[in-house]
Amino acid sequence: MERTLLERQFPQELKTMSERDLGLLCCEIREFLLEKVSRTGGHLASNLGVVELSVALHKVFDSPKDKIIWDVGHQAYVHKILTGRAADFDGLRQKDGLSGFPKRCESEHDFYDSGHASTSISAAMGYAVARDLKGEDHQVIAVIGDGSLTGGVAFEALNNAGHRGTSLKVILNDNEMSIEGSSGSLSKYLSTLRTSQKYLEFKKNLKQTLKGKKVGDNIYHGLENLRNTLRSAVLPGVVFEELGFKYFGPVDGHNLKEVMDTLEMTKGIEGPVLIHVVTRKGKGYRNAENNPEKYHGIGAFDPATGVVKGGSAFTYSKVFGNKLLQLAAEDDRVVAITAAMMEATGLARFGQRYPDRFFDVGIAEQHAVSFAAGLALSGMKPIVAIYSTFLQRSYDEILSEVCLQNLPVIFAIDRAGSVGNDGETHHGVFDLSYLSHMPNMTILLPKDGKELADMLEYALTLNSPCAIRYPRGTAEDFSEACGVKPVDGTCEVLKPGTGGPVLVAGGKMTGIALKAAAYLGNIGIEAGVVNLRFLKPLDVTGLKQALSGASALITLEDNVLAGGLGATVSAALKQEGVSLPELQFGWPDRFIPQGSQDQLFEDFGLSPEKIAERIGEFLERKA
Amino acid sequence: MERTLLERQFPQELKTMSERDLGLLCCEIREFLLEKVSRTGGHLASNLGVVELSVALHKVFDSPKDKIIWDVGHQAYVHKILTGRAADFDGLRQKDGLSGFPKRCESEHDFYDSGHASTSISAAMGYAVARDLKGEDHQVIAVIGDGSLTGGVAFEALNNAGHRGTSLKVILNDNEMSIEGSSGSLSKYLSTLRTSQKYLEFKKNLKQTLKGKKVGDNIYHGLENLRNTLRSAVLPGVVFEELGFKYFGPVDGHNLKEVMDTLEMTKGIEGPVLIHVVTRKGKGYRNAENNPEKYHGIGAFDPATGVVKGGSAFTYSKVFGNKLLQLAAEDDRVVAITAAMMEATGLARFGQRYPDRFFDVGIAEQHAVSFAAGLALSGMKPIVAIYSTFLQRSYDEILSEVCLQNLPVIFAIDRAGSVGNDGETHHGVFDLSYLSHMPNMTILLPKDGKELADMLEYALTLNSPCAIRYPRGTAEDFSEACGVKPVDGTCEVLKPGTGGPVLVAGGKMTGIALKAAAYLGNIGIEAGVVNLRFLKPLDVTGLKQALSGASALITLEDNVLAGGLGATVSAALKQEGVSLPELQFGWPDRFIPQGSQDQLFEDFGLSPEKIAERIGEFLERKA
Repeated sequence: MERTLLERQFPQELKTMSERDLGLLCCEIREFLLEKVSRTGGHLASNLGVVELSVALHKVFDSPKDKIIWDVGHQAYVHKILTGRAADFDGLRQKDGLSGFPKRCESEHDFYDSGHASTSISAAMGYAVARDLKGEDHQVIAVIGDGSLTGGVAFEALNNAGHRGTSLKVILNDNEMSIEGSSGSLSKYLSTLRTSQKYLEFKKNLKQTLKGKKVGDNIYHGLENLRNTLRSAVLPGVVFEELGFKYFGPVDGHNLKEVMDTLEMTKGIEGPVLIHVVTRKGKGYRNAENNPEKYHGIGAFDPATGVVKGGSAFTYSKVFGNKLLQLAAEDDRVVAITAAMMEATGLARFGQRYPDRFFDVGIAEQHAVSFAAGLALSGMKPIVAIYSTFLQRSYDEILSEVCLQNLPVIFAIDRAGSVGNDGETHHGVFDLSYLSHMPNMTILLPKDGKELADMLEYALTLNSPCAIRYPRGTAEDFSEACGVKPVDGTCEVLKPGTGGPVLVAGGKMTGIALKAAAYLGNIGIEAGVVNLRFLKPLDVTGLKQALSGASALITLEDNVLAGGLGATVSAALKQEGVSLPELQFGWPDRFIPQGSQDQLFEDFGLSPEKIAERIGEFLERKA
Repeated sequence: MERTLLERQFPQELKTMSERDLGLLCCEIREFLLEKVSRTGGHLASNLGVVELSVALHKVFDSPKDKIIWDVGHQAYVHKILTGRAADFDGLRQKDGLSGFPKRCESEHDFYDSGHASTSISAAMGYAVARDLKGEDHQVIAVIGDGSLTGGVAFEALNNAGHRGTSLKVILNDNEMSIEGSSGSLSKYLSTLRTSQKYLEFKKNLKQTLKGKKVGDNIYHGLENLRNTLRSAVLPGVVFEELGFKYFGPVDGHNLKEVMDTLEMTKGIEGPVLIHVVTRKGKGYRNAENNPEKYHGIGAFDPATGVVKGGSAFTYSKVFGNKLLQLAAEDDRVVAITAAMMEATGLARFGQRYPDRFFDVGIAEQHAVSFAAGLALSGMKPIVAIYSTFLQRSYDEILSEVCLQNLPVIFAIDRAGSVGNDGETHHGVFDLSYLSHMPNMTILLPKDGKELADMLEYALTLNSPCAIRYPRGTAEDFSEACGVKPVDGTCEVLKPGTGGPVLVAGGKMTGIALKAAAYLGNIGIEAGVVNLRFLKPLDVTGLKQALSGASALITLEDNVLAGGLGATVSAALKQEGVSLPELQFGWPDRFIPQGSQDQLFEDFGLSPEKIAERIGEFLERKA
């Protein structure tokens, strides 16, 4: 073991390594992860938890012939180390660097570009069914966490694969929690299985079953019948068994030999198999073991002390959480719902202060929204706090349950717009487009923290659906520079136009528009700046007034251009007979890669300088 | 029982009726349903199946104080009869008439405007949690079919409600099939429960449990412990029990007394309770019992013979099914996926001919799409056939799994645009808006059956996601009148412009545009007509050419205007510097009510005459 991780030929080399060396390798991988992730930031705790599991998978299975599909995918760092990408970890989650998620373009060992939870079993079933149709012979393995398993689509897949009898392995990586604690009966059930004394019996049973198989079909079938008879009484995993899966476990996920033995033993079993592996998030790094939530997705930190570099910023999430606490104190109809993101959406204090009025439903965004609809129908004031990208799961429930019934559900859409290093799967750049065609929906874009707080208060006065979308990161404060205008359905003119271009911006882009206007001022172009605030309903009167005499309409949004703010404003003004030269800033019709938020804005021409420059050119061309 | 159904005061009157009279009432209701639905069309089989259950619910529970929530809602006809709406059945599903689904504006006994499957448990949990927060005291009951239970959001809700221990009743209306046969392990599991010999034991157990409760806590807890110990071995329903629900059943859903007794006995039990009621679709009308699929949603028919009036039209669904058969014969990579809609999407023959390449995943639209993604990644050519309105459930999977990975999955979007009598919850008028901002997606709109077939063939040549959306109803055929232009990425000029307005239409609206142009010709306006065909990518060159010299751009779509065809065409042309007076025809920013398709088009100004008229006025105003 003199060579470093980077120098060895994985996964092939694993095949010839002794158990002892594999154990040492696990230690080495943990050190490597800690060193690298403490510098770049990333998902630490979940990866420390799957070191032995990942090693065992690559030892027992034969990737890329066998296909390993990682649900969500933020726990695939060890898999990346074991498939020739250790050398790339300095660029983890950086622009043009290694992705924090599986990416087919990175490696022949990645089979599904993931990022959103709960779909790995469906994808694995697709691979497995195709294999059978083509008469090929290889294994398909989905690795899914207990948190992800609560997402409805995972159940849809279990139900379908179990029924069809498709040969595939589901590795249930049970780390005894989803991102922020468990919130469903399934967790309780898994916990029962974990503490069950039937563990030893299971192993005996398994051996008998397998032995029977070798001896002959008759004995096998005899045992199979016995097993079926005793199943409910003796064998754990009956829920999975009833769904058509053969259940094996629980296995200690940090006992490498046990994991490897179980994978090896179950390898040849046909039909759907679920292997229950119990792991510990953060395993091997005490700070992360003690506080796996903090180390779930973390910025750069000092590995010795665990202190995060840069300190804690006053984020939009915090502004939201604080304001909601105040509003909840004033109105006991206010209730909050989140989908496994209590801490991250700023609801931790709300949850402590109002445990009866706080609902973490787990990774179950659809249920979160329909549940909120029921609450609203009973006179409550539900606020649903979910990241923009994950709220996509609830598109139908928002439209067909909340908007159709015109219910006062407030959607607090966090991480809207570009999110930075999590990349393609996580940018919340579609919400304006998927919400703006929903009847009855009000859509608000706060320019800063103060406006977010005011908008939340305003939303509670409405008796209809309302979405407030705000970005990841530190909340700005323009109240001193720009004053504070009450949230009243109108747009806000921050800098009146004087016959030049007028910049109409929403949310985070408002601050960028002000800066761009300052740059324009430097090259002699006086630009007006309007903070749109209400994308829907649109303040057409206010906009017309603000644009009167303008030389051009410039729109700015942190959303894709198609169906977004610019498109909506442009279409509405056209209806009103306003026709101006137009330039729209926003994200193009492609998936946006990873990189810091600033870098991405720069690269896509959305930084204040780039915007000012392009406006200058545009006006010149028009002139 | 001399008075007719219409004259009696339901639900109050149920309370005082004898068991015998209630039995007679069930017969009367069945006759009434058959008489009415055979005239108006509607959901017959499912309603015949829940006659006793609905009567029992209203006998035992106290609506509207107790809240009964009907999943999907097409089985709520009996509930409507029992809540004062029998007199309105002549107008069932007609314009301004009784809705085929629960509607809060119709009655204080309706609590959730439904239409899409699987969300009733979430909504019921919302009602129940609000009740508890407000310190109120009433029952909340969700009635959900076994088909709906396969939808992931139902599992999310079971998992969450079971964990939280919320007091609510879930009535599992198990009619041994979803709309078109069962397709998951859950169905198999339910079937095991149904045929279980433990039925009698259950009843004994139940009585003991309840008796124990009255005698005192000690005995109750003793029995509870015994029950827990024996649960897996003796009691059925272990899957639901493990999810935190107390399971009771199976109950014969056509034995009124048994259903009432069970509801009465379980009424006082706290926490989440699931009551498994076995019913038969079409019960009491032999034609429907023998062919429940046909009578699921049916047009007007002769109740004596069962023959549907109007006969079978050559629908878009049939064109799709036929063409797919041909393509599957030519290419064995072609596989088809549907979500409990084999018959309705035209895939029945495909399923028979290619059972290995056909996948009915049940009501599980999300899984359908991610499963297709896995298949596509393995080199198959999956075609996912789902109604436009139901595909909304898969928004995130289409975007984050299929489009992000740029996979060749073909979405055959049936029932796109207005669907008519199913009303608000079923119109497929949002798909262009929710698909057009997805990167990598190709969106095709066939003007007639021939073009649908050609587009399907074309889509298979692409190596990227493609959506083909087509309407409900008879496929037109313009090939003789307009000739046939190969599907090649371009739009199709059906009638060149001659300096007047040019109508740019997609899909079904193309035929309407041709007719509108004819009307315009009658009043001396020569209009050009363009069949857009490709909404994405847009044939900007072709459009510019077709619009050269035009006096106005008129767009026509069977979709909401926001983010739809008109908006997309307008924005693209603006980018190109084309500026024309514009008029857009499509659905407004509100939910569209029920009515025949023709009526709705007339009412919303989308009939050829209305369109021509408005264009005439528009041009006059502009002139």
